[in-house]
Amino acid sequence: MAMQLHDLAGADPRRRFSPYCWRTRMALAHKGFVPEALPWRFTDKAAIADSGSDKVPVLRDDGRVIADSWHIAEYLEDTYPDRPSLFGGPGGRALARFVNAWADATVIAGLATLIVADIPAILAPDDLAYFIRSREARFGRPLPEVTADRDERVVQFRQSLHPARMILREQPFLHGDAPAYADYILFGGFQWARCVSSFPILVADDPLYAWRERMLDLFGGLARSAPTA
Amino acid sequence: MAMQLHDLAGADPRRRFSPYCWRTRMALAHKGFVPEALPWRFTDKAAIADSGSDKVPVLRDDGRVIADSWHIAEYLEDTYPDRPSLFGGPGGRALARFVNAWADATVIAGLATLIVADIPAILAPDDLAYFIRSREARFGRPLPEVTADRDERVVQFRQSLHPARMILREQPFLHGDAPAYADYILFGGFQWARCVSSFPILVADDPLYAWRERMLDLFGGLARSAPTA
Repeated sequence: MAMQLHDLAGADPRRRFSPYCWRTRMALAHKGFVPEALPWRFTDKAAIADSGSDKVPVLRDDGRVIADSWHIAEYLEDTYPDRPSLFGGPGGRALARFVNAWADATVIAGLATLIVADIPAILAPDDLAYFIRSREARFGRPLPEVTADRDERVVQFRQSLHPARMILREQPFLHGDAPAYADYILFGGFQWARCVSSFPILVADDPLYAWRERMLDLFGGLARSAPTA
Repeated sequence: MAMQLHDLAGADPRRRFSPYCWRTRMALAHKGFVPEALPWRFTDKAAIADSGSDKVPVLRDDGRVIADSWHIAEYLEDTYPDRPSLFGGPGGRALARFVNAWADATVIAGLATLIVADIPAILAPDDLAYFIRSREARFGRPLPEVTADRDERVVQFRQSLHPARMILREQPFLHGDAPAYADYILFGGFQWARCVSSFPILVADDPLYAWRERMLDLFGGLARSAPTA
Protein backbone atom coordinates (compact mmCIF):
# COMPACT_ATOMS: atom_id res chain seq x y z
CA MET A 1 0.00 0.00 0.00
CA ALA A 2 1.33 3.43 -0.92
CA MET A 3 2.37 5.82 1.80
CA GLN A 4 -0.21 8.40 2.74
CA LEU A 5 0.61 12.02 3.52
CA HIS A 6 -1.83 14.37 5.23
CA ASP A 7 -1.06 17.53 3.27
CA LEU A 8 -2.41 21.02 3.95
CA ALA A 9 -4.82 22.12 1.19
CA GLY A 10 -6.80 25.23 0.35
CA ALA A 11 -10.37 25.58 -0.87
CA ASP A 12 -9.08 24.05 -4.09
CA PRO A 13 -7.95 20.62 -2.88
CA ARG A 14 -5.14 20.69 -5.46
CA ARG A 15 -3.57 23.73 -3.82
CA ARG A 16 -1.04 22.33 -1.32
CA PHE A 17 0.69 25.20 0.42
CA SER A 18 2.33 24.22 3.71
CA PRO A 19 6.10 24.92 3.77
CA TYR A 20 6.59 21.93 6.06
CA CYS A 21 4.54 19.60 3.86
CA TRP A 22 6.60 20.70 0.86
CA ARG A 23 9.76 19.73 2.73
CA THR A 24 8.25 16.29 3.17
CA ARG A 25 6.91 15.96 -0.38
CA MET A 26 10.36 16.77 -1.80
CA ALA A 27 12.01 14.37 0.68
CA LEU A 28 9.63 11.58 -0.34
CA ALA A 29 10.37 12.22 -4.03
CA HIS A 30 14.12 12.20 -3.26
CA LYS A 31 13.67 8.73 -1.74
CA GLY A 32 11.64 7.64 -4.77
CA PHE A 33 8.26 7.53 -3.08
CA VAL A 34 5.02 8.93 -4.49
CA PRO A 35 2.60 9.14 -1.59
CA GLU A 36 -1.15 9.40 -1.70
CA ALA A 37 -1.27 13.07 -0.66
CA LEU A 38 -4.57 13.48 1.18
CA PRO A 39 -5.94 17.04 1.34
CA TRP A 40 -6.12 18.22 4.94
CA ARG A 41 -7.42 21.46 6.44
CA PHE A 42 -6.38 23.30 9.61
CA THR A 43 -9.68 22.43 11.31
CA ASP A 44 -9.52 18.72 10.48
CA LYS A 45 -7.77 17.74 13.69
CA ALA A 46 -9.64 14.42 13.97
CA ALA A 47 -8.03 12.99 10.84
CA ILE A 48 -4.54 13.12 12.39
CA ALA A 49 -5.40 12.70 16.09
CA ASP A 50 -3.70 9.28 16.17
CA SER A 51 -0.38 10.95 15.28
CA GLY A 52 -0.23 12.82 18.56
CA SER A 53 0.06 16.07 16.61
CA ASP A 54 -2.51 18.64 15.54
CA LYS A 55 -0.44 19.79 12.57
CA VAL A 56 0.66 18.36 9.25
CA PRO A 57 2.68 16.88 7.67
CA VAL A 58 1.67 13.50 9.02
CA LEU A 59 2.96 10.44 7.18
CA ARG A 60 1.40 6.96 7.28
CA ASP A 61 3.70 4.16 6.20
CA ASP A 62 2.94 0.48 6.71
CA GLY A 63 0.94 1.02 9.89
CA ARG A 64 3.31 3.63 11.33
CA VAL A 65 2.22 7.24 11.85
CA ILE A 66 4.88 9.97 11.93
CA ALA A 67 4.27 13.68 12.50
CA ASP A 68 6.60 16.68 12.02
CA SER A 69 8.65 17.28 8.87
CA TRP A 70 12.01 16.85 10.61
CA HIS A 71 10.98 13.60 12.27
CA ILE A 72 9.62 12.35 8.94
CA ALA A 73 12.94 13.12 7.24
CA GLU A 74 14.83 11.17 9.92
CA TYR A 75 12.31 8.33 9.71
CA LEU A 76 12.74 8.09 5.94
CA GLU A 77 16.54 8.15 6.19
CA ASP A 78 16.62 5.48 8.90
CA THR A 79 13.92 3.23 7.42
CA TYR A 80 15.11 3.39 3.80
CA PRO A 81 18.91 3.69 4.04
CA ASP A 82 19.46 2.02 0.66
CA ARG A 83 17.61 4.76 -1.21
CA PRO A 84 19.29 8.12 -2.00
CA SER A 85 20.45 9.77 1.20
CA LEU A 86 18.69 12.88 2.47
CA PHE A 87 21.64 13.89 4.65
CA GLY A 88 24.86 12.50 3.17
CA GLY A 89 26.12 11.01 6.42
CA PRO A 90 25.92 11.78 10.14
CA GLY A 91 27.60 15.17 9.83
CA GLY A 92 25.09 16.18 7.19
CA ARG A 93 22.20 15.08 9.39
CA ALA A 94 23.44 17.07 12.38
CA LEU A 95 23.89 20.23 10.32
CA ALA A 96 20.66 19.80 8.32
CA ARG A 97 19.04 20.16 11.72
CA PHE A 98 20.81 23.49 12.07
CA VAL A 99 19.59 24.56 8.62
CA ASN A 100 16.09 23.52 9.73
CA ALA A 101 16.28 25.75 12.81
CA TRP A 102 17.71 28.64 10.78
CA ALA A 103 15.05 28.33 8.10
CA ASP A 104 12.24 28.22 10.64
CA ALA A 105 13.52 31.23 12.58
CA THR A 106 14.65 33.35 9.62
CA VAL A 107 12.97 32.26 6.40
CA ILE A 108 9.54 30.98 7.47
CA ALA A 109 9.10 33.66 10.13
CA GLY A 110 10.29 36.35 7.73
CA LEU A 111 8.13 35.18 4.84
CA ALA A 112 5.08 35.05 7.09
CA THR A 113 5.29 38.80 7.65
CA LEU A 114 5.34 39.32 3.87
CA ILE A 115 2.56 36.98 2.72
CA VAL A 116 0.24 36.10 5.60
CA ALA A 117 -2.48 38.50 4.49
CA ASP A 118 -2.70 36.71 1.13
CA ILE A 119 -3.51 33.34 2.65
CA PRO A 120 -7.21 33.81 3.65
CA ALA A 121 -8.19 34.20 -0.01
CA ILE A 122 -7.14 30.64 -0.84
CA LEU A 123 -8.47 28.87 2.27
CA ALA A 124 -11.40 26.50 2.54
CA PRO A 125 -14.44 28.14 4.23
CA ASP A 126 -14.14 26.11 7.43
CA ASP A 127 -10.49 27.15 7.86
CA LEU A 128 -10.98 30.85 7.33
CA ALA A 129 -12.10 31.94 10.81
CA TYR A 130 -9.56 29.63 12.49
CA PHE A 131 -6.70 30.96 10.42
CA ILE A 132 -7.49 34.64 10.85
CA ARG A 133 -8.09 34.30 14.59
CA SER A 134 -4.94 32.28 15.27
CA ARG A 135 -2.63 34.39 13.08
CA GLU A 136 -3.97 37.70 14.33
CA ALA A 137 -3.35 36.45 17.86
CA ARG A 138 0.22 35.54 16.88
CA PHE A 139 1.00 38.88 15.25
CA GLY A 140 -1.13 41.00 17.60
CA ARG A 141 -2.81 42.95 14.79
CA PRO A 142 -4.96 42.53 11.67
CA LEU A 143 -3.18 40.58 8.91
CA PRO A 144 -3.35 43.39 6.32
CA GLU A 145 -1.43 45.55 8.79
CA VAL A 146 1.26 42.86 9.15
CA THR A 147 2.05 42.90 5.44
CA ALA A 148 1.30 46.59 4.78
CA ASP A 149 4.91 47.76 4.46
CA ARG A 150 6.19 44.66 2.71
CA ASP A 151 7.59 46.51 -0.29
CA GLU A 152 10.16 48.05 2.05
CA ARG A 153 10.67 45.10 4.39
CA VAL A 154 11.34 42.58 1.64
CA VAL A 155 14.74 44.21 1.15
CA GLN A 156 15.75 43.30 4.68
CA PHE A 157 14.28 39.82 4.25
CA ARG A 158 16.43 39.26 1.18
CA GLN A 159 19.47 40.31 3.21
CA SER A 160 18.60 37.75 5.87
CA LEU A 161 19.07 35.03 3.23
CA HIS A 162 22.73 35.97 2.88
CA PRO A 163 24.19 32.74 4.33
CA ALA A 164 22.35 30.63 1.75
CA ARG A 165 23.24 33.07 -1.04
CA MET A 166 26.94 32.81 -0.16
CA ILE A 167 26.80 29.03 -0.64
CA LEU A 168 24.74 29.17 -3.82
CA ARG A 169 27.28 31.49 -5.42
CA GLU A 170 29.78 28.64 -5.13
CA GLN A 171 27.72 25.53 -5.76
CA PRO A 172 24.35 24.71 -7.37
CA PHE A 173 22.65 23.37 -4.22
CA LEU A 174 23.08 23.91 -0.48
CA HIS A 175 24.00 20.24 -0.26
CA GLY A 176 26.64 20.59 -2.99
CA ASP A 177 26.45 19.34 -6.58
CA ALA A 178 23.09 17.67 -6.02
CA PRO A 179 20.15 18.61 -3.80
CA ALA A 180 19.31 16.93 -0.51
CA TYR A 181 17.22 17.62 2.54
CA ALA A 182 18.83 20.97 3.42
CA ASP A 183 17.65 22.24 0.03
CA TYR A 184 14.13 20.93 0.62
CA ILE A 185 14.06 22.67 4.00
CA LEU A 186 14.77 26.06 2.46
CA PHE A 187 12.71 25.44 -0.65
CA GLY A 188 9.59 24.66 1.38
CA GLY A 189 9.41 28.30 2.41
CA PHE A 190 9.68 29.64 -1.12
CA GLN A 191 7.17 27.13 -2.44
CA TRP A 192 4.73 28.18 0.30
CA ALA A 193 5.06 31.80 -0.77
CA ARG A 194 4.65 30.84 -4.41
CA CYS A 195 1.46 28.86 -3.74
CA VAL A 196 -0.37 31.52 -1.73
CA SER A 197 0.90 34.89 -2.95
CA SER A 198 1.97 36.70 -6.10
CA PHE A 199 4.20 39.04 -4.09
CA PRO A 200 7.73 38.86 -5.59
CA ILE A 201 10.07 37.46 -2.95
CA LEU A 202 13.31 37.17 -4.93
CA VAL A 203 14.86 39.26 -7.69
CA ALA A 204 16.06 37.63 -10.89
CA ASP A 205 19.79 38.28 -10.46
CA ASP A 206 19.88 36.66 -7.01
CA PRO A 207 21.68 33.28 -6.96
CA LEU A 208 18.72 32.13 -4.85
CA TYR A 209 16.39 32.85 -7.76
CA ALA A 210 18.29 30.49 -10.09
CA TRP A 211 18.49 27.90 -7.31
CA ARG A 212 14.71 28.09 -6.82
CA GLU A 213 14.28 27.49 -10.56
CA ARG A 214 16.46 24.39 -10.28
CA MET A 215 14.39 23.20 -7.33
CA LEU A 216 11.16 23.71 -9.28
CA ASP A 217 12.55 21.49 -12.04
CA LEU A 218 13.34 18.54 -9.77
CA PHE A 219 11.37 15.30 -9.90
CA GLY A 220 9.73 16.09 -13.20
CA GLY A 221 8.63 19.53 -12.10
CA LEU A 222 6.81 18.28 -8.98
CA ALA A 223 6.77 21.71 -7.34
CA ARG A 224 6.50 23.75 -10.54
CA SER A 225 3.29 21.99 -11.54
CA ALA A 226 1.54 22.81 -8.27
CA PRO A 227 -1.27 25.41 -8.38
CA THR A 228 0.09 28.84 -7.46
CA ALA A 229 -1.37 32.20 -6.55
CA MET B 1 58.92 19.54 10.61
CA ALA B 2 55.87 20.69 12.54
CA MET B 3 53.19 22.67 10.78
CA GLN B 4 53.40 26.43 11.18
CA LEU B 5 50.42 28.69 11.69
CA HIS B 6 50.58 32.45 11.29
CA ASP B 7 48.28 33.45 14.13
CA LEU B 8 47.06 36.95 14.95
CA ALA B 9 48.60 38.21 18.21
CA GLY B 10 48.28 41.29 20.39
CA ALA B 11 50.97 43.34 22.09
CA ASP B 12 51.37 40.31 24.34
CA PRO B 13 52.49 37.67 21.83
CA ARG B 14 50.66 35.04 23.87
CA ARG B 15 47.32 36.74 23.27
CA ARG B 16 45.91 35.11 20.12
CA PHE B 17 42.53 36.61 19.33
CA SER B 18 41.45 36.10 15.72
CA PRO B 19 38.10 34.25 15.43
CA TYR B 20 39.28 32.70 12.17
CA CYS B 21 42.62 31.59 13.61
CA TRP B 22 40.76 29.97 16.50
CA ARG B 23 38.67 27.98 14.04
CA THR B 24 41.93 26.71 12.56
CA ARG B 25 43.64 26.05 15.89
CA MET B 26 40.70 23.93 17.04
CA ALA B 27 40.59 22.13 13.67
CA LEU B 28 44.30 21.33 13.91
CA ALA B 29 43.84 19.98 17.44
CA HIS B 30 40.87 17.90 16.23
CA LYS B 31 43.17 16.32 13.64
CA GLY B 32 45.82 15.75 16.29
CA PHE B 33 48.25 18.42 15.15
CA VAL B 34 50.06 20.90 17.38
CA PRO B 35 51.39 23.61 15.07
CA GLU B 36 54.13 26.09 15.77
CA ALA B 37 51.80 29.07 16.16
CA LEU B 38 53.81 32.09 15.05
CA PRO B 39 52.62 35.46 16.37
CA TRP B 40 51.49 37.69 13.50
CA ARG B 41 50.27 41.28 13.46
CA PHE B 42 47.88 43.05 11.09
CA THR B 43 50.71 45.12 9.64
CA ASP B 44 53.03 42.16 9.04
CA LYS B 45 51.86 41.55 5.47
CA ALA B 46 55.35 40.54 4.26
CA ALA B 47 55.43 37.42 6.42
CA ILE B 48 52.46 35.88 4.57
CA ALA B 49 52.86 37.45 1.12
CA ASP B 50 53.68 34.06 -0.42
CA SER B 51 50.22 32.80 0.57
CA GLY B 52 48.49 35.21 -1.79
CA SER B 53 46.49 36.55 1.17
CA ASP B 54 47.01 39.53 3.41
CA LYS B 55 45.11 37.97 6.31
CA VAL B 56 45.60 35.08 8.70
CA PRO B 57 45.21 32.23 9.35
CA VAL B 58 47.91 31.03 7.01
CA LEU B 59 49.09 27.44 7.43
CA ARG B 60 52.45 26.04 6.28
CA ASP B 61 52.59 22.28 5.95
CA ASP B 62 55.39 20.40 4.25
CA GLY B 63 56.15 23.17 1.77
CA ARG B 64 52.52 24.02 1.07
CA VAL B 65 51.02 27.38 2.06
CA ILE B 66 47.25 27.62 2.62
CA ALA B 67 45.32 30.77 3.52
CA ASP B 68 41.73 31.23 4.77
CA SER B 69 40.22 29.22 7.61
CA TRP B 70 37.66 27.44 5.41
CA HIS B 71 40.26 26.44 2.84
CA ILE B 72 42.55 25.22 5.62
CA ALA B 73 39.75 23.05 7.04
CA GLU B 74 39.14 21.51 3.61
CA TYR B 75 42.89 21.03 3.12
CA LEU B 76 43.22 19.24 6.46
CA GLU B 77 40.24 17.00 5.75
CA ASP B 78 41.48 16.07 2.26
CA THR B 79 45.15 15.69 3.18
CA TYR B 80 44.64 13.75 6.40
CA PRO B 81 41.50 11.66 5.79
CA ASP B 82 42.58 8.94 8.23
CA ARG B 83 42.55 11.33 11.18
CA PRO B 84 39.27 12.29 12.92
CA SER B 85 36.91 13.87 10.41
CA LEU B 86 36.13 17.58 10.61
CA PHE B 87 32.95 17.21 8.58
CA GLY B 88 31.54 13.69 8.99
CA GLY B 89 31.05 13.07 5.30
CA PRO B 90 30.22 15.08 2.17
CA GLY B 91 26.84 16.27 3.47
CA GLY B 92 28.50 17.55 6.59
CA ARG B 93 31.12 19.39 4.56
CA ALA B 94 28.51 21.10 2.37
CA LEU B 95 26.47 22.24 5.35
CA ALA B 96 29.48 23.23 7.45
CA ARG B 97 30.06 25.75 4.68
CA PHE B 98 26.56 27.06 5.33
CA VAL B 99 27.31 27.30 9.05
CA ASN B 100 30.49 29.19 8.12
CA ALA B 101 28.53 31.73 6.06
CA TRP B 102 25.89 32.09 8.79
CA ALA B 103 28.51 32.55 11.51
CA ASP B 104 30.39 35.17 9.49
CA ALA B 105 27.24 37.14 8.65
CA THR B 106 25.47 36.83 11.98
CA VAL B 107 27.86 35.95 14.77
CA ILE B 108 31.15 37.60 13.78
CA ALA B 109 29.46 40.69 12.36
CA GLY B 110 27.18 40.94 15.40
CA LEU B 111 29.98 40.43 17.91
CA ALA B 112 32.09 43.08 16.19
CA THR B 113 29.50 45.73 17.02
CA LEU B 114 29.67 44.69 20.68
CA ILE B 115 33.42 44.39 21.27
CA VAL B 116 35.35 46.28 18.58
CA ALA B 117 36.10 49.24 20.84
CA ASP B 118 37.83 46.92 23.32
CA ILE B 119 40.36 45.67 20.78
CA PRO B 120 42.76 48.67 20.51
CA ALA B 121 43.77 48.22 24.15
CA ILE B 122 45.32 44.81 23.47
CA LEU B 123 47.02 45.57 20.15
CA ALA B 124 50.71 45.85 19.41
CA PRO B 125 51.78 49.49 18.85
CA ASP B 126 52.38 49.07 15.12
CA ASP B 127 48.87 47.66 14.62
CA LEU B 128 46.99 50.33 16.53
CA ALA B 129 46.69 53.03 13.86
CA TYR B 130 45.96 50.45 11.14
CA PHE B 131 43.21 48.83 13.16
CA ILE B 132 41.45 52.02 14.21
CA ARG B 133 41.61 53.50 10.72
CA SER B 134 40.35 50.38 8.92
CA ARG B 135 37.57 49.60 11.42
CA GLU B 136 36.36 53.19 11.65
CA ALA B 137 36.16 53.20 7.85
CA ARG B 138 34.13 49.97 7.97
CA PHE B 139 31.67 51.23 10.59
CA GLY B 140 31.66 54.85 9.48
CA ARG B 141 32.12 56.24 12.98
CA PRO B 142 34.47 56.17 15.98
CA LEU B 143 34.70 52.72 17.58
CA PRO B 144 33.46 53.83 21.03
CA GLU B 145 30.27 55.00 19.29
CA VAL B 146 29.84 51.59 17.63
CA THR B 147 29.73 49.80 20.97
CA ALA B 148 28.09 52.58 23.01
CA ASP B 149 24.63 51.00 23.27
CA ARG B 150 25.82 47.42 23.58
CA ASP B 151 24.02 46.75 26.84
CA GLU B 152 20.76 47.05 24.92
CA ARG B 153 21.87 45.52 21.64
CA VAL B 154 23.34 42.37 23.15
CA VAL B 155 19.77 41.19 23.76
CA GLN B 156 19.08 41.22 20.03
CA PHE B 157 22.44 39.59 19.35
CA ARG B 158 21.56 36.73 21.69
CA GLN B 159 18.27 36.29 19.81
CA SER B 160 20.18 36.03 16.53
CA LEU B 161 21.89 32.90 17.91
CA HIS B 162 18.53 31.13 18.10
CA PRO B 163 19.24 28.52 15.38
CA ALA B 164 22.32 27.29 17.24
CA ARG B 165 20.49 27.39 20.57
CA MET B 166 17.68 25.22 19.18
CA ILE B 167 20.22 22.53 18.26
CA LEU B 168 22.16 22.76 21.52
CA ARG B 169 18.97 22.19 23.50
CA GLU B 170 18.79 18.76 21.88
CA GLN B 171 22.43 17.67 21.59
CA PRO B 172 25.75 18.64 23.23
CA PHE B 173 27.45 19.92 20.06
CA LEU B 174 26.28 21.37 16.75
CA HIS B 175 27.83 18.34 15.09
CA GLY B 176 25.97 15.93 17.40
CA ASP B 177 27.39 13.90 20.28
CA ALA B 178 30.94 15.07 19.59
CA PRO B 179 32.31 18.35 18.27
CA ALA B 180 33.54 18.91 14.74
CA TYR B 181 34.29 21.81 12.44
CA ALA B 182 30.83 23.41 12.64
CA ASP B 183 31.42 23.80 16.37
CA TYR B 184 34.85 25.32 15.83
CA ILE B 185 33.36 27.80 13.35
CA LEU B 186 30.91 29.11 15.91
CA PHE B 187 33.31 28.87 18.82
CA GLY B 188 35.90 31.03 17.06
CA GLY B 189 33.64 34.02 17.49
CA PHE B 190 33.08 33.49 21.19
CA GLN B 191 36.76 32.87 21.82
CA TRP B 192 37.60 36.10 19.98
CA ALA B 193 35.21 38.00 22.25
CA ARG B 194 36.64 36.26 25.30
CA CYS B 195 40.25 37.14 24.38
CA VAL B 196 39.69 40.86 23.76
CA SER B 197 36.78 41.95 25.94
CA SER B 198 35.27 41.40 29.35
CA PHE B 199 31.81 42.35 28.08
CA PRO B 200 29.43 39.47 28.95
CA ILE B 201 28.14 37.98 25.69
CA LEU B 202 26.10 35.04 26.98
CA VAL B 203 23.98 34.52 30.08
CA ALA B 204 24.54 31.48 32.27
CA ASP B 205 21.20 29.74 31.62
CA ASP B 206 21.66 29.81 27.84
CA PRO B 207 22.40 26.37 26.31
CA LEU B 208 25.10 28.19 24.34
CA TYR B 209 26.84 29.09 27.59
CA ALA B 210 27.16 25.44 28.64
CA TRP B 211 28.23 24.53 25.10
CA ARG B 212 30.96 27.21 25.22
CA GLU B 213 32.19 25.71 28.49
CA ARG B 214 32.42 22.30 26.82
CA MET B 215 34.34 23.84 23.94
CA LEU B 216 36.77 25.52 26.35
CA ASP B 217 37.46 22.11 27.92
CA LEU B 218 38.40 20.42 24.63
CA PHE B 219 41.96 19.36 23.83
CA GLY B 220 43.19 19.75 27.38
CA GLY B 221 41.70 23.21 27.75
CA LEU B 222 43.47 24.61 24.68
CA ALA B 223 41.13 27.60 24.42
CA ARG B 224 40.50 28.03 28.14
CA SER B 225 44.21 28.44 28.87
CA ALA B 226 44.60 31.29 26.36
CA PRO B 227 45.14 34.81 27.77
CA THR B 228 41.82 36.66 28.01
CA ALA B 229 40.70 40.22 28.61
